[in-house]
Amino acid sequence: MAKRLVPLLNRVLVEKIVPPSKTNAGILLPEKSTKLNSGKVVAVGHGVRDKEGKFIPVTVKEGDTVLLPDYGGNEVKLGDKEYHLYRDEDILGTLHD
Amino acid sequence: MAKRLVPLLNRVLVEKIVPPSKTNAGILLPEKSTKLNSGKVVAVGHGVRDKEGKFIPVTVKEGDTVLLPDYGGNEVKLGDKEYHLYRDEDILGTLHD
Amino acid sequence: MAKRLVPLLNRVLVEKIVPPSKTNAGILLPEKSTKLNSGKVVAVGHGVRDKEGKFIPVTVKEGDTVLLPDYGGNEVKLGDKEYHLYRDEDILGTLHD
Amino acid sequence: MAKRLVPLLNRVLVEKIVPPSKTNAGILLPEKSTKLNSGKVVAVGHGVRDKEGKFIPVTVKEGDTVLLPDYGGNEVKLGDKEYHLYRDEDILGTLHD
Amino acid sequence: MAKRLVPLLNRVLVEKIVPPSKTNAGILLPEKSTKLNSGKVVAVGHGVRDKEGKFIPVTVKEGDTVLLPDYGGNEVKLGDKEYHLYRDEDILGTLHD
Amino acid sequence: MAKRLVPLLNRVLVEKIVPPSKTNAGILLPEKSTKLNSGKVVAVGHGVRDKEGKFIPVTVKEGDTVLLPDYGGNEVKLGDKEYHLYRDEDILGTLHD
Amino acid sequence: MAKRLVPLLNRVLVEKIVPPSKTNAGILLPEKSTKLNSGKVVAVGHGVRDKEGKFIPVTVKEGDTVLLPDYGGNEVKLGDKEYHLYRDEDILGTLHD
Repeated sequence: MAKRLVPLLNRVLVEKIVPPSKTNAGILLPEKSTKLNSGKVVAVGHGVRDKEGKFIPVTVKEGDTVLLPDYGGNEVKLGDKEYHLYRDEDILGTLHD
Repeated sequence: MAKRLVPLLNRVLVEKIVPPSKTNAGILLPEKSTKLNSGKVVAVGHGVRDKEGKFIPVTVKEGDTVLLPDYGGNEVKLGDKEYHLYRDEDILGTLHD
Repeated sequence: MAKRLVPLLNRVLVEKIVPPSKTNAGILLPEKSTKLNSGKVVAVGHGVRDKEGKFIPVTVKEGDTVLLPDYGGNEVKLGDKEYHLYRDEDILGTLHD
Repeated sequence: MAKRLVPLLNRVLVEKIVPPSKTNAGILLPEKSTKLNSGKVVAVGHGVRDKEGKFIPVTVKEGDTVLLPDYGGNEVKLGDKEYHLYRDEDILGTLHD
Repeated sequence: MAKRLVPLLNRVLVEKIVPPSKTNAGILLPEKSTKLNSGKVVAVGHGVRDKEGKFIPVTVKEGDTVLLPDYGGNEVKLGDKEYHLYRDEDILGTLHD
Repeated sequence: MAKRLVPLLNRVLVEKIVPPSKTNAGILLPEKSTKLNSGKVVAVGHGVRDKEGKFIPVTVKEGDTVLLPDYGGNEVKLGDKEYHLYRDEDILGTLHD
Repeated sequence: MAKRLVPLLNRVLVEKIVPPSKTNAGILLPEKSTKLNSGKVVAVGHGVRDKEGKFIPVTVKEGDTVLLPDYGGNEVKLGDKEYHLYRDEDILGTLHD
């Protein structure tokens, strides 16, 4: 039974997208062409408080596909799935088709 | 006779949850599947003061199950029980069933 | 199929300009005379928030030719093209003919 | 003749509580069960000034039993007694029976 | 064809003044007497924004002769001329005859 | 002829009190019992300015006996006497009989 | 022909006072008794701006004799004279007869 994690402050819970290492036809892809460290946002915190005590909202939202930095993030295991926690300001951008 | 600890500022007193290392039926679980550094919040401080001198409340409360960072925290022994003190901003998230 | 990246905060997505290493007539240029670490701005973030919560706009805009620092920046591969992400404050200047 | 020390700013003068290393009946206690780095607050400073020049009071008061961090603090010898000076924000919590 | 560089934020583009290493009469000057790390300001940025969003102007202006620090600055090559970019606050002073 | 030093900002000029290393009767004191790093305040600066430009006064005053940290401070020789300069915030406390 | 240097921001141009290494009568002074790192203020900057954009004046003025820190400062050679540039906050105090 997997627990649900609600991130605190401006933390963002991300499920990494593992790129296919071969094409549908079974051809192995060279490692370089598949390397894009991206993930799906699963949950976001309420944000950090500004000086007046109001919460500054997190810039990404649940469901966003995000570009992640190469370093940092906390690995979290919930049930048998692996997630990563990032600070909102460390997420590089959002990805769109 | 165990003493009671009231954390100062935005510190949070946590009792770590030690995951069972084998199932009820006695089967040993591989270490990886059991690793989730979580704990139960036992007591919280009043928070730190903002610039107007008002206390910014701590984001977790007594009884919360929290996800803890892999490093940091001060080990505290009260009576024969072991606790850990964390700064509120270092707690990664709250866990829910 | 290349994804489109929208940079977060004050990040700037840049496509580096690779200087020709020989002239049109085919004469090899010495390395020194061609070294200018510049790029074309492809996309910019909304900026970071100031203390009142308003966004401080990024100082460069899409289409600008910019002078880049020798170090720093995150390499990003979108489709088969290579880009770099810089923080707005790390971009040294804009280049004009 | 011991001098009296008035701590400056948000410093707190603490007399450490040395736990008994054996019981009343003379049985030696294992080191682990006796380790709790605590002390009695002997004197506190006026606090540091906030931006309007008012003093932010120290969170502990004379007579409090406090939990101390494992590192830090300045050793001070007054007469033949040994004390320690801590910054208010470094004191972990107050202890109560 | 040399490009023109407009520095961003509080950056200052400087063309270094290379002191003559011999006198007009051809006498070699000892190295010590000629060492003054100075330059001519070629272009300045708009300055950085203060908390209200207004630009704080750069303290030097185009045409100023400035004293430069021994370390720091970014080397920039525009056309066949070499320049250096400094942050306004790193320029030590202005030089006058 | 000794010069007089007026400390700048929140600096405090202190003449260290060298504890007697033997009693009046000539008995050598063990080093431990004499170690208290204290001094007499000889002069204080005007303090540092707050954000409105007003000076925040220094917390100690001329004539105070102060407890000094074990490290830090600038040694200053005026005439044939040795003094030390400390930042106000580095002085641990005031000593009273 | 010596150039004149106008320091920027809160920088202070100082000409160091070299203490006589022997008395008028020609007796060599031991090094210790002559060591006081002092100088004469030759020029001061306009100061740094506070948050409202007004300049915070430098605490020393032209003609002051100042006590200098043992480390830091930028050596500057103007004509055949050697000077040093210090940040206002690094100057320890003013010296008076």
